[in-house]
Amino acid sequence: MMSTPRLVQVREKALKQNDLLARALRERFREASVFAVSLVSSPGAGKTAFLEKTLARLRPHCRVAALVGDLATDNDAARLQRTEAPVRQITTGTVCHLEAAMVENALAGWDLNEIDCLFIENVGNLVCPSSYDLGEEMRLVLMSVTEGEDKPLKYPTIFNTADVAVITKLDLAAAVEFDLAAAHQSIQSVRPGMRVFEVSAKTGQGMGEWQQFLQLRIAEW
Amino acid sequence: MMSTPRLVQVREKALKQNDLLARALRERFREASVFAVSLVSSPGAGKTAFLEKTLARLRPHCRVAALVGDLATDNDAARLQRTEAPVRQITTGTVCHLEAAMVENALAGWDLNEIDCLFIENVGNLVCPSSYDLGEEMRLVLMSVTEGEDKPLKYPTIFNTADVAVITKLDLAAAVEFDLAAAHQSIQSVRPGMRVFEVSAKTGQGMGEWQQFLQLRIAEW
Repeated sequence: MMSTPRLVQVREKALKQNDLLARALRERFREASVFAVSLVSSPGAGKTAFLEKTLARLRPHCRVAALVGDLATDNDAARLQRTEAPVRQITTGTVCHLEAAMVENALAGWDLNEIDCLFIENVGNLVCPSSYDLGEEMRLVLMSVTEGEDKPLKYPTIFNTADVAVITKLDLAAAVEFDLAAAHQSIQSVRPGMRVFEVSAKTGQGMGEWQQFLQLRIAEW
Repeated sequence: MMSTPRLVQVREKALKQNDLLARALRERFREASVFAVSLVSSPGAGKTAFLEKTLARLRPHCRVAALVGDLATDNDAARLQRTEAPVRQITTGTVCHLEAAMVENALAGWDLNEIDCLFIENVGNLVCPSSYDLGEEMRLVLMSVTEGEDKPLKYPTIFNTADVAVITKLDLAAAVEFDLAAAHQSIQSVRPGMRVFEVSAKTGQGMGEWQQFLQLRIAEW
C-alpha cells in the first residue's frame, strides 16, 4: 500500500511527541514525590477490581489517587470512588489507549504534592498501550486465569514493556483448569526475571504480598 | 499536538485503501459463493475454542476453512488444525488488528470454489479491529461472562460494527455471578435488535442453536 510508509513516519512523530510529554510528566511526578503506577490488560482482566482493593488497602498508609481510562462510560470511576480516594475518568472516545497528554489534562487542578501514589488504569487493550509512555514509574500488566496460559507468547510486546505481571482471578483457576506453571513459563520466556504476583481481588488471596511489595517501593521512592 | 490532524488524514487514507481491498475481497467471496464470517473479541474471550467447536460441527455439512490472526505464535492454527479443516495463521507482528490485505495474502493458493464457509479470527482487541472491513459477510463479536456485563457500553463501536453477539463461557456464569439480563440490556442499548447467542464451547450449551442459525445463513447464500 502506497500510504503505509507515510503512515509509519507520521505515527513515529506522534509517538515522539508523546515521549516528550511523558518525560515532562515523569519529571513532575519525581519533583512532587508521586509514585505513578499504570495498569494494562485486555478488557475484563480485572484491572478495576484489583485497583479497588489496592486503593482500599493503601489508603490507611499513604495518599492515593487514580485516573481510569475507557472509550466510553464512567462506570470504573464510579466503582473506584467508593474507596473515597480521588478518582477521575478519562474518556478516550474511539482512541484505543491512553496518551501522556490525556494524563496531563486529567491531572489539572490536582495538587501533586498531596499524592503519594497515583494509579493510571489504561483502556483494556493488550496491544496499543504498549507504545505509549505515560510517565509512570512502574507498569503492571494483568492477565486473568480465564484468558489462557499463552497470552504472554501471543502479546509479547506488552509484557516486554511492563515491569511487573499480575495473574488475576485466581479463585477461578480450578474452574478453568488454569496451568499456573505454564503461565509462569510463558511470562519468563518473554521477559526473563519478571516479578509475578498471583492474586484474587475477590477472596483477597495474594493481595497482602502485592501490597507489601508496593508499599516498599513507595517508601523507597 | 501539531501532528494529530496529519495523522488523522493519513490514517483515513489507509482506511480508504483497506475499504477498497475489502470490497474486492467481498466480490471474490460472492463470486465463489464463500460465506465469510469474522470473529472479534478481547484476548481470551474464547474465540478459538468457539471456532474449534463450530468447525467440527459444520464439517459434516459443508466445506469450512479458517484464517486466524495473532501478533505472534501459531498456537491457534495448531489448535484448529485438529478439526482437519484447512487453517492458516496470520502473524501480524506489532499490528493490533487484521487488514484486508493480510486476508488476501493468506488466501493465496486456496481455491475459493472449494470453500463454503470461511472463518476469519481477528487479533484479540475490542477497539482497533472495528475500523477494518475484511470483506466478511457477517461479523461476530464475542464477550465472555468473565469480562463483566458492561463491556458493550465501554466498547460500543465494536458492538455497533458487528452483526451478531455471542456470550461465551456460559459454564462459568454462576462462578462469576454473571447477570445475563444486564448483559443483554447492555448489548441492546448499544445495538437495538442485535441477535445474541449464549454458549459454552466446553459443555456444548447453546452451540446447536448457533449452528442451526449459521447453516441456514450459509444455505440461503
